[in-house]
Amino acid sequence: MVATSLSPLAPAGFPELPAIAGVKLHTATLGIRYKGRPDVLFAELEPGTQVAGVFTTSTTASAAVRWGREALKGGTARAFFVNAGNSVAFTGKAGEKFVADKVECAAKALGCAKNEIFTASTGVIGEPTTATRITDALDDILANDAGWLDAAKAIMTTDTFPKGASATATINGTKVTIAGIAKGSGMIEPNMATMLGFVFTDAALPHSVLQALLSDCNNRSFNAITVDSDTSTSDTLLLAATGKAGNDTVSDANDPAIAEFKDALEGVLRDLAHQIVRDGEGASKFITVNVTGAVNEKEAKIAAKAIANSPLVKTAIAGEDANWGRIVMAVGKCGVTADPNKLTVSIGGIELAKNGERVADYDEGPVEAHIKGQYIDIAADLGFGDGAATVWTCDLTHGYISINADYRS
Amino acid sequence: MVATSLSPLAPAGFPELPAIAGVKLHTATLGIRYKGRPDVLFAELEPGTQVAGVFTTSTTASAAVRWGREALKGGTARAFFVNAGNSVAFTGKAGEKFVADKVECAAKALGCAKNEIFTASTGVIGEPTTATRITDALDDILANDAGWLDAAKAIMTTDTFPKGASATATINGTKVTIAGIAKGSGMIEPNMATMLGFVFTDAALPHSVLQALLSDCNNRSFNAITVDSDTSTSDTLLLAATGKAGNDTVSDANDPAIAEFKDALEGVLRDLAHQIVRDGEGASKFITVNVTGAVNEKEAKIAAKAIANSPLVKTAIAGEDANWGRIVMAVGKCGVTADPNKLTVSIGGIELAKNGERVADYDEGPVEAHIKGQYIDIAADLGFGDGAATVWTCDLTHGYISINADYRS
Repeated sequence: MVATSLSPLAPAGFPELPAIAGVKLHTATLGIRYKGRPDVLFAELEPGTQVAGVFTTSTTASAAVRWGREALKGGTARAFFVNAGNSVAFTGKAGEKFVADKVECAAKALGCAKNEIFTASTGVIGEPTTATRITDALDDILANDAGWLDAAKAIMTTDTFPKGASATATINGTKVTIAGIAKGSGMIEPNMATMLGFVFTDAALPHSVLQALLSDCNNRSFNAITVDSDTSTSDTLLLAATGKAGNDTVSDANDPAIAEFKDALEGVLRDLAHQIVRDGEGASKFITVNVTGAVNEKEAKIAAKAIANSPLVKTAIAGEDANWGRIVMAVGKCGVTADPNKLTVSIGGIELAKNGERVADYDEGPVEAHIKGQYIDIAADLGFGDGAATVWTCDLTHGYISINADYRS
Repeated sequence: MVATSLSPLAPAGFPELPAIAGVKLHTATLGIRYKGRPDVLFAELEPGTQVAGVFTTSTTASAAVRWGREALKGGTARAFFVNAGNSVAFTGKAGEKFVADKVECAAKALGCAKNEIFTASTGVIGEPTTATRITDALDDILANDAGWLDAAKAIMTTDTFPKGASATATINGTKVTIAGIAKGSGMIEPNMATMLGFVFTDAALPHSVLQALLSDCNNRSFNAITVDSDTSTSDTLLLAATGKAGNDTVSDANDPAIAEFKDALEGVLRDLAHQIVRDGEGASKFITVNVTGAVNEKEAKIAAKAIANSPLVKTAIAGEDANWGRIVMAVGKCGVTADPNKLTVSIGGIELAKNGERVADYDEGPVEAHIKGQYIDIAADLGFGDGAATVWTCDLTHGYISINADYRS
C-alpha cells in the first residue's frame, strides 16, 4: 500500500463537536492492522435510545450489514461496536461468528437484548479472523472514555483525515443537538472496504420517524456522492436518538415541528458526505454536478451520476480541461430522456453549449480560470421538466491509480 | 494530447485481407487534423449491395448516426464515406449540413439515391466545420484506389495501430469471403470520439437477414467490450454484402445454410472488437471476464460488465494483484441475483473463493504467475442458473490518466 499524504481538499482541522447527552464514546488501540492509533470504537447509548439505519444495497453484503438489517427491526440501540482493519466481509461462517461474538459479549456487558447491539467492520475483504482480541478487551474498551476526535480516528482505514460534523435545531421549543462521524476514501477503498457513518442526537424521536428522516436525507447526502462508482459490501449509516433533550416528541416524519431538525440532520449528513469526497482517493478537485430540467428527479440523478462517474469527465477536470463534449456524451449514454437540441451545459456558471451546439460567443477565459480552482461546478439542463438533482464527486488522477494499482509492484 | 506509442498488446502486424468483389476502396490525405496519413475513406459498393447497421444508443447521437438510422430503412448501400479528425457531433445545424453535403455530392457522383450513402465522422466533439474540403476533393478521392491497410489507417484517431480481420465460409456450397476494418481506442477517446467498424462480404444475402445476423453477432463482439464505460455519440458498425459470390441466397436468418457464415461473421467482429480492447487507452493487459450461473444471459452480461468496468478491479489487474474481493464487490453492487454463499470466483482458471469464503487450501503461486502475464482470465459463477456471458476489457493504468488528463497541463 502506498503511504498517502493529507488530501489537498482536507478541511483545516477536525471540528469542535458537542457532547450528546446519553452517548458515551469509548475507543481502544488493539493493533488489529493499524499501529499506534485507535482501531476500535464502542459508542454506548442510554437505554431507550431509538435507532435508524441505512445499509449497502450490495447482494454480497457483509455479515455485519446482514445482522444490522435484522437488528434494526427492534428500533432501539444500546451500542455501535466498530472495528477497523478487517471488514470480515465474504468470510462465510467465520464472519458470522465474528459478528455474533461481538454482539453477544456487548449485550452481556450492557445487560441488553442482542438486537440492540449494532456492529460494523471495515478493512480487508475475505480474510477470516476471530473476534477474540476484541471481545477479550471489552472491559478495557469500556473503561477508556474517548472524545469525538479519537472516535473518528478509530474507524478510519486509508482515510487521510478524521471526519466529523454537528448542528443544532429546535423541536417544539426545545434545543436539540446532532453530532456525527464518518469514514471513507472511496465508495470502496483499496483492499479495505467501506463507507461508515454514525450520527447521534439527544432529540426525542421514535424509530419510525428517525428512519423516515434518515432514508430521505441520505438520498441527498451519502447516496449523492461517488468517488469511483464502486459500492462497498459494508456501507453502513446509523442514527441514534437518546431522547435526553426532553423535547415533546412527534409521531409523523412530516410534522412541521421537526422541519428544522430535518434540515440540520441533512446538513450534518451532507457535511460528512462531502468530507468523504474531499478524501476521495487521489482527489485534487471537488466537483459539484447539478442536473436540472429532467423529466423527474430520478432521471436527474441518473444523469448527474453518469457525469460524475464518467472517467473521461473526471480525467478532463483533473487535466483542467473544460471538455464539455464529454459531459454531452455522459448525458447521452445514460438512457434518460434527452435531446441534444434542448441541452444546456455550464461550467463554473458559464454556459458553454446550448441548443445543440457550442455557444456562439463563448469566451474560454473565465471557464479556464474556474477550472484551475479546487471547486468545480458542472451544470446540465436537459430542457424537459422539473427534475433536479445534485451529486458530488472528485476528479480521477494518477493518485487514484497509484493507490489502487501500484502497491503490489 | 500526449504522443502515444504502440500498444504493448498490439498484434504483430496488419493482417493480409482478401479483396471483396464489388467493393472498391478509396482514400485521401486531406490533413483535416492529422498530417501525412490518409484521413478520408470512401468505400464504393456495387449497385444492389445490401446493408445492415447498428449504431450508438446515445440520446445525444451525432448527425451522421441519425442519418444512418434513417438511411438504413432503404436496405441498400452504394458507399461508406468516412472522415477522421472531427466527429462534427453536437454542432447543431452545422453538423446536419456537414452530413447532408457529403451525402449529396457522393450520391451525385455515383448516380444513386441519397439513402444509399452512409457517412461516419470521428474526432473532436462540438467543433462546427463545413464539408467543403472533403466534397471539393471527391473526384480526387474516387481516383485514388487504396488497399485495406490505407483504409484502416484512414479512419484512425488516437489508435496506435490499424485494425483488420477476415474470414471465409460456405453458403449453399459457394465460398464467400468477409473482410472488415475498425477503429477505436476507448468506447470514446480523448476529445476524439467513436468506435467505427466497416465489414464487407461478397455473399448474396438480403438486408433483413444481414441485419438480424449483425445485431445478434454484435451483442457478443462490439457490445461485449468496454475500455472505460463511456459510450460514444458516434459509434457505428456497418455490414455491406455485394452478392458477387453468387451463392444461392436465403431469406431466413436462422436458415442452417448460413450457420457457417454467421460463425465467420461473428469471428471477424470479435477479432476487430478484441483489437480495439488491445488498443484501449493505457492498456497493459487484456482481460476476459466470464460470468456463468446467472439466472439468465442478460444478468450474466450485467455482472460481467460490472466486473469489467469496476475501476478497482481494473487497477488491481494493472497492479498484478489477485484482489478477488473486488470481484465479489462488483458482482454485489450491480443488482443481479447473487448470494455470497453460492458465488465462485476464479482467476486464471484457479478457484480463489467459493461458498462464501476464500478457498481453504488456496495457493497464491499459480494465480500470481497468471496475473503477471498479458492475458488475464476472470471467471465468476453465480450458482443460480444457466445464464452466461463473456466481456472483454483492459486494465486501468497511469497511461489512461496521462492520455485523458495530462495533455492540457
